[in-house]
Amino acid sequence: MSERAPHGAPSKMRVEAFSDGVFAIAITLLVLEIVVPTAQSGRLVNSLEQLWPAYLAYAISFLTIGVMWVNHHDIFHLVGFVNRSLLYCNIALLAVIAFIPFPTAVVAHYISSDPTDQRTAVELYGVTMIAMGACFSLLWAYLDRRPAVRANGVDAARIRSSLARACAGTVTYMLGTALAVIAPAVALGLFAVLVLVFVFTGSNTAWRSSARR
Amino acid sequence: MSERAPHGAPSKMRVEAFSDGVFAIAITLLVLEIVVPTAQSGRLVNSLEQLWPAYLAYAISFLTIGVMWVNHHDIFHLVGFVNRSLLYCNIALLAVIAFIPFPTAVVAHYISSDPTDQRTAVELYGVTMIAMGACFSLLWAYLDRRPAVRANGVDAARIRSSLARACAGTVTYMLGTALAVIAPAVALGLFAVLVLVFVFTGSNTAWRSSARR
Amino acid sequence: MSERAPHGAPSKMRVEAFSDGVFAIAITLLVLEIVVPTAQSGRLVNSLEQLWPAYLAYAISFLTIGVMWVNHHDIFHLVGFVNRSLLYCNIALLAVIAFIPFPTAVVAHYISSDPTDQRTAVELYGVTMIAMGACFSLLWAYLDRRPAVRANGVDAARIRSSLARACAGTVTYMLGTALAVIAPAVALGLFAVLVLVFVFTGSNTAWRSSARR
Amino acid sequence: MSERAPHGAPSKMRVEAFSDGVFAIAITLLVLEIVVPTAQSGRLVNSLEQLWPAYLAYAISFLTIGVMWVNHHDIFHLVGFVNRSLLYCNIALLAVIAFIPFPTAVVAHYISSDPTDQRTAVELYGVTMIAMGACFSLLWAYLDRRPAVRANGVDAARIRSSLARACAGTVTYMLGTALAVIAPAVALGLFAVLVLVFVFTGSNTAWRSSARR
Repeated sequence: MSERAPHGAPSKMRVEAFSDGVFAIAITLLVLEIVVPTAQSGRLVNSLEQLWPAYLAYAISFLTIGVMWVNHHDIFHLVGFVNRSLLYCNIALLAVIAFIPFPTAVVAHYISSDPTDQRTAVELYGVTMIAMGACFSLLWAYLDRRPAVRANGVDAARIRSSLARACAGTVTYMLGTALAVIAPAVALGLFAVLVLVFVFTGSNTAWRSSARR
Repeated sequence: MSERAPHGAPSKMRVEAFSDGVFAIAITLLVLEIVVPTAQSGRLVNSLEQLWPAYLAYAISFLTIGVMWVNHHDIFHLVGFVNRSLLYCNIALLAVIAFIPFPTAVVAHYISSDPTDQRTAVELYGVTMIAMGACFSLLWAYLDRRPAVRANGVDAARIRSSLARACAGTVTYMLGTALAVIAPAVALGLFAVLVLVFVFTGSNTAWRSSARR
Repeated sequence: MSERAPHGAPSKMRVEAFSDGVFAIAITLLVLEIVVPTAQSGRLVNSLEQLWPAYLAYAISFLTIGVMWVNHHDIFHLVGFVNRSLLYCNIALLAVIAFIPFPTAVVAHYISSDPTDQRTAVELYGVTMIAMGACFSLLWAYLDRRPAVRANGVDAARIRSSLARACAGTVTYMLGTALAVIAPAVALGLFAVLVLVFVFTGSNTAWRSSARR
Repeated sequence: MSERAPHGAPSKMRVEAFSDGVFAIAITLLVLEIVVPTAQSGRLVNSLEQLWPAYLAYAISFLTIGVMWVNHHDIFHLVGFVNRSLLYCNIALLAVIAFIPFPTAVVAHYISSDPTDQRTAVELYGVTMIAMGACFSLLWAYLDRRPAVRANGVDAARIRSSLARACAGTVTYMLGTALAVIAPAVALGLFAVLVLVFVFTGSNTAWRSSARR
């Protein structure tokens, strides 16, 4: 520690920059799953209309990754320094985030097909969301257990409530995935609602410009 | 607010970095829509020439996203801190920006085909541009209504004129999209001209290097 | 100018960050042009060997974009603040950089095919390089003509020699493209050599860590 | 040197930002190799299950690039300023990193096919890893030989031990690649184990937040 401090490398900043990069790319790659349709002459409107599951999947996944990016920011805002455990928890989380375009594409492709495949597709999506929730819970739990990695003056109660929220989210994704066995469309709706809940109940703290401080 | 300030996280900077990432990726993905042609032996020149709509679409979309990035910078330059509303307005805008490669590809693919499909393609592009204009107008309107989120010393008149400009742009995109029903090629020309208007009438303020301040 | 300075937005930094993003994505997308071959059972080695033009094109283009990124850094290092003209010159340059994966793929695809197509492919690559050289020359010429946009204490002679170098590079790319009409393979070799010349004769100034200053 | 210092360009930071971009994109592109399967009606589960080599390749490559990003950070943390040699060593390393999605896809595609092709695929992956190890060794060797480019107060012994570690990793990748001739599956397992060894024996130094210093 003492060895590193004098060099003054903005290490937490690089972790954030790298994570921002992965979030930005994963969220932008989603559009590649919407493929230009080969329409019969004069039927492009119909072909574009039939792509509605792809648009919906794009919207839900974009918002989901957007919300997760906000969550990620909230965590690292409270982190004082990044040790190896945090680093690899973070890489595990990024691996799940970067994976999201795949289940999104599977759902978009199979949502209006055979019921068994619908179920499979939604379950794959659900399992990915559970993995994501688990990674977030892990990160919050680590911050809860190791006060040493926190930034100065961080409120312990705030971390505990965020941890509880991450766990609740993960459990809800588990219930949704179980529900997908019976009613995949309802489960998918639940996932969409869940994202909106995250949007409207998120932390209220404003993000100040560094320029003003 | 007071809770966050001491940690010193450059939060506005992360919003900008994330947005820059999405803009940079969306603008670079445009080239993936220009696919290497499979030419008959000795006919590669002709195949490359026939790709002209793809080149044109690339040029227009690149410049459009470039101009939007400049606009985005202009907004966040005046923002003092980022609250949840600004954050999700921004994510909505990014969702539209990241979507642009899709309508671009549709236009490039169908511009020289059946007239009905031409019209559909240009309308899809127009609707995307309207959505973009609406997001920008929303962001400026928010800054206009909530002086609290502005940076210190920001001129209110400047925000009002930017808002008016964003609304005018949105309305012009609406007219262009309506025009596409009758004359898709003319509408596409209008969209190209509109981008050039934005380029040459943009804010004149120079962007100073932080190193000099 | 005076209006903006108090807000303290690191505007030049955002231009650099956005440009870095485009460079990083364009350079990384190059690998997508190397497609996994569908080999006959037991013949994967041969299929991978036949991809040599793709590997070569990847290496040349990666190094080219890498060198251009170094050049870009050299320019913006001397820029004091970014005005609209510089901004759009930069966007034009980025449009060319982001386009490079396409001619690279065309060359890799047609290098060992019909002689006419070989020539076409290498000429397309050459024309792209000329456009790139022209953009760099334009940026240096602007810095040469407008001392106001330079950073403090920048040596005018240094800018003039960089401008001369950029023009010389552009002319050499023109000669190479002309040469491609007669001998495409030789022209491609010249482009590869030219990149190496840029690597070994580049500016000698070290890039200091900001931490030490 | 003296000419540049006054301009205050955060040059090392731009090298890091560019590198972070390439790492982030290469790691995120890996998911594009997992293609949505076209399943027979009702058989999506089976199709998704058959993709296990793609998932495994994704996991191994993601972790590998993640670990390499940590290594890259460790190197540049000790660098004081970036000269041309370091710059081009770094570009060579990035060329290898950006290449990784290709051998990963080849392994995922051919791992359960003909034994000769299995071997070829694993060897291609191994050779890529050897190239990566060689680039890292080169960077550490350069830092070892040229104390002038180091940051102030860097421990020479630390650099020597990192160099030894990078060389040992390269040699192990060589042995693994040789092993692939006889037992490709075992070699692939070795590569996976090797990454985990890097994860658990990496430098223990914590990455402090710049905010606290």
